[in-house]
Amino acid sequence: MAGDVVTTPPTAEMASAYLTSLPERRRREFISSIIGRGTAADDLVGRRVRVGGWVKTGREQGKGAFAFLELNDGSCLANLQVIVDSSVYPLTQLLHTGTSVLVEGELKKPPEGVKQRVELRVDRVLEVGSADPSTYPLPKTRLTLEFLRDYVHLRPRTNTISAIARIRDELAYATHTFFRENGFRYVHTPIITTSDCEGAGEMFQVTTLFSDAEKLDKELQNNPPPSESEIEAAKLLVKEKGEDVAHLKSLKASKEEISASVLKLTKAKESLSKLEERFNLKPGIPQKDGKVDYSRDFFGRQAFLTVSGQLQVETHACALGNVYTFGPTFRAEHSHTSRHLAEFWMIEPEIAFGDLEDDMYYAEEYVKFLCRWLLDHCLEDMEFMVKNYDKSAIDRLKLVSSEPFKRISYTEAVELLCAVTDKKFENKVEWGVDLASEHERYLTEVIFKRPVIVYNYPKEIKAFYMRLNDDQKTVAAMDVLVPKVGELIGGSQREERYDALVERITDAGLPLEPYDWYLELRKFGTVKHSGFGLGFERMILFATGLDNIRDVIPFPRYPGRADL
Amino acid sequence: MAGDVVTTPPTAEMASAYLTSLPERRRREFISSIIGRGTAADDLVGRRVRVGGWVKTGREQGKGAFAFLELNDGSCLANLQVIVDSSVYPLTQLLHTGTSVLVEGELKKPPEGVKQRVELRVDRVLEVGSADPSTYPLPKTRLTLEFLRDYVHLRPRTNTISAIARIRDELAYATHTFFRENGFRYVHTPIITTSDCEGAGEMFQVTTLFSDAEKLDKELQNNPPPSESEIEAAKLLVKEKGEDVAHLKSLKASKEEISASVLKLTKAKESLSKLEERFNLKPGIPQKDGKVDYSRDFFGRQAFLTVSGQLQVETHACALGNVYTFGPTFRAEHSHTSRHLAEFWMIEPEIAFGDLEDDMYYAEEYVKFLCRWLLDHCLEDMEFMVKNYDKSAIDRLKLVSSEPFKRISYTEAVELLCAVTDKKFENKVEWGVDLASEHERYLTEVIFKRPVIVYNYPKEIKAFYMRLNDDQKTVAAMDVLVPKVGELIGGSQREERYDALVERITDAGLPLEPYDWYLELRKFGTVKHSGFGLGFERMILFATGLDNIRDVIPFPRYPGRADL
Repeated sequence: MAGDVVTTPPTAEMASAYLTSLPERRRREFISSIIGRGTAADDLVGRRVRVGGWVKTGREQGKGAFAFLELNDGSCLANLQVIVDSSVYPLTQLLHTGTSVLVEGELKKPPEGVKQRVELRVDRVLEVGSADPSTYPLPKTRLTLEFLRDYVHLRPRTNTISAIARIRDELAYATHTFFRENGFRYVHTPIITTSDCEGAGEMFQVTTLFSDAEKLDKELQNNPPPSESEIEAAKLLVKEKGEDVAHLKSLKASKEEISASVLKLTKAKESLSKLEERFNLKPGIPQKDGKVDYSRDFFGRQAFLTVSGQLQVETHACALGNVYTFGPTFRAEHSHTSRHLAEFWMIEPEIAFGDLEDDMYYAEEYVKFLCRWLLDHCLEDMEFMVKNYDKSAIDRLKLVSSEPFKRISYTEAVELLCAVTDKKFENKVEWGVDLASEHERYLTEVIFKRPVIVYNYPKEIKAFYMRLNDDQKTVAAMDVLVPKVGELIGGSQREERYDALVERITDAGLPLEPYDWYLELRKFGTVKHSGFGLGFERMILFATGLDNIRDVIPFPRYPGRADL
Repeated sequence: MAGDVVTTPPTAEMASAYLTSLPERRRREFISSIIGRGTAADDLVGRRVRVGGWVKTGREQGKGAFAFLELNDGSCLANLQVIVDSSVYPLTQLLHTGTSVLVEGELKKPPEGVKQRVELRVDRVLEVGSADPSTYPLPKTRLTLEFLRDYVHLRPRTNTISAIARIRDELAYATHTFFRENGFRYVHTPIITTSDCEGAGEMFQVTTLFSDAEKLDKELQNNPPPSESEIEAAKLLVKEKGEDVAHLKSLKASKEEISASVLKLTKAKESLSKLEERFNLKPGIPQKDGKVDYSRDFFGRQAFLTVSGQLQVETHACALGNVYTFGPTFRAEHSHTSRHLAEFWMIEPEIAFGDLEDDMYYAEEYVKFLCRWLLDHCLEDMEFMVKNYDKSAIDRLKLVSSEPFKRISYTEAVELLCAVTDKKFENKVEWGVDLASEHERYLTEVIFKRPVIVYNYPKEIKAFYMRLNDDQKTVAAMDVLVPKVGELIGGSQREERYDALVERITDAGLPLEPYDWYLELRKFGTVKHSGFGLGFERMILFATGLDNIRDVIPFPRYPGRADL
């Protein structure tokens, strides 16, 4: 039985024989390949299959003669209807929601009038994993997403969270496919960093100082440091041994006698230095000049979790050409909103020899590609979102994937927003002030009714690495705004001119030294380049219409919570 | 000129007109698409192209009439030969190694006897980024990999590091492709975790306690806490205001008078409580009962960087079916070897309803897939490795992708190694002791001359989550051993039986409570499952034949070093 574990046969010879003689691998079939779109029921009927999954609902019929199980294996939203006869297995052990089964049988055409195209008549039950209904935390009643956040280890068994997991997987693969097709190379930028991309931003610190201090504490308890009198005694011994040597020398003693005496002196000195070292051990976090001594930390300096891989990925754009990074990023902000996470994933492409125009081009193509991909690969899950969370989710994907994005300068955006009379904004619109989310959404949802790219922002509200335009007032930055979430992408052409960059760093009040390496990219064979960042979870919110970012990442981290 | 930045036209209307009227996008061509394998020289000759890249070598010819530049853009190992006439651009500005250029011209057939199939005659030089040869750290002389580690921001411009970057990118894409083709979903397991996969292992701590303490220090300096006498004065005020209220009440004063007096009392109390709060502020790391008070840390408890996503990805295997994670993992070990990094990437698939046999099947198929992928997609870079680092690198890929892996039990492996007479091992071979690297390499390189999977290890030397075999002595673990690096993959069938897992955790001396969620996966609808982990950098070492792991990750992190 393929479900069996491989046990150790008594001898080595038998072990090899056992493994090579195992019958041909028998695979379990994914339910998606049985009842997914594109499979014709007629091809399936009569086929023997083995499936495994979890019971969504189970009910006995025919006075206990057989049971109907709705079985889901996570490969798709739909369940497979499974029929088990009471002669095959004790039915009561199969019925509870959450029970796992591995079963074999034949696919049959259900009776007329039944919505399923095919059902499975089971003749072998290979494995069962029970789920006690009195303690199983996910009964079949509909549970709120908020409730499910307390069960991140079990919630992927629910329709919503499993649909999001599949959408997430598809968007990740679409991302790699898009960039590969466009000649971008994937680069792993560092997670632990000693650079700070924005020159600000709350960062998590990475350290071993606490565990080192704990170890030292334990060590000092088990083996207490010497007392001052022990040190004094050791010093006295060194003095005595020194005097012995001097004495022997003055007596012109034999070489052997003198070197024996010198050896004793050396040992006394070593012993003293060891005692002094231990005497100087201080419990707790190492300090120097009243501050934490980070030279004693793992990396010999303060280290943090990355807030963006952009600066580092630029090193590879300036060598390999088009590149992108796709990895976790971090913010230690005490935000309790539905739009912020302490740990989230970001995609950051960087286009060598590319200007702002190229940047906008790839940003638009990428977002369109993702939307088309979901329509092509995830329609069933998207229909579930439309039915349960956001009526317009599919229409939005269609709109974004087909309509050209509107492009307007920041200056134009401000003019348009200032002229708005049918809505009162909470935040003032004024040239030189960043657009608020309400403004961004008004531009894309009300004025243009499609995605909008706003470009050329005032330099004061944007980061130091963005390229200064010839007007000396704006930088070559751009934001992609989409309905439902507002800003989806932020990007810019990077300042590739050495002197201009030095000035921007200085103007931002930042020290130059940490950016030496970044400046060297401009000093040696500098090239125009541009790039952008897309928050992966924000893209999923946009696609699915869900409201809380904690529901679109498998293991959400936010102030006070880091389950598992 | 496409190289120009987009500047802000004076009015909003003009801005839109400007952008929509831009001529059709002109792309730079990758050098790989001009001189890569599979392009026929005849199709290229006569084509106009624009290319950008960095000068590897430049030399003037014909008494300064023209220059030959070897141009590389990172898209492939090979350089494009570029010819610039002195009438087109001042040649001396183009010649130095490291100079960047963006040029346009026509592809020509070179004279007979020249090795290049095609060369570029430049008629426009669009952009130049100089590189001063007196300060550029990467001259054309061959540099050691060790030297290059001090220039992680520039080293991807060298042949070796750019070849590795391309191999890395290809292996990452091959990984996603393999698992997708086999029905695995990609899951992002958490980077910040409150679980410890191995129940041991040195972990980095993630904290905001230092920055919080710094903020508090600054705040206390700017706004010193109240003195004891201030507190006393505030207490006295509360007392007085209380007496006032009592006095007015005893006088049966008017409601207005009394409530005015109560208001004053309330204010005095508030003021006191604020003072007391500030009085109790202690600078430094928050302490409780003589220990660090982690309830005041960002997540309300101690948090760490993950050492493995396995335990967490199991939650999704027990819901979605086959899944895998591919992300960064961390070890805070003070290892200064050529095989260890503090930050590295790992691929961890998990097979639902899969036993050890399935685990070995997917491990073998995956490694074979990666090897074939490199032969199909990276031959030029692999040939470079063969020429410069490891003569057998390509042969090794061919061997591994074609030969079935040998499978032997741990017991058999020990028997075979004990019988070895032609080699003296440094480490003793004995049943119950883990195999050392020298044993692993001997098995794969000498005895079997192909990859070997060793399975069923003594339970004492393996982790608690590995499934206990019926012999009660071994667990269903397996390691894949390959020539050159030894262990490439470690995996196991997971213990899916609740009681057996409780016993294994307890036997390992671990507390049960942190594993509550992990145990619940076994309590509710448990299924057999298995998985493995492949260290991504180790795979690259295996493929390329390089010796030091610090050279196969873009930004290596190890004790004392975390550049950028």
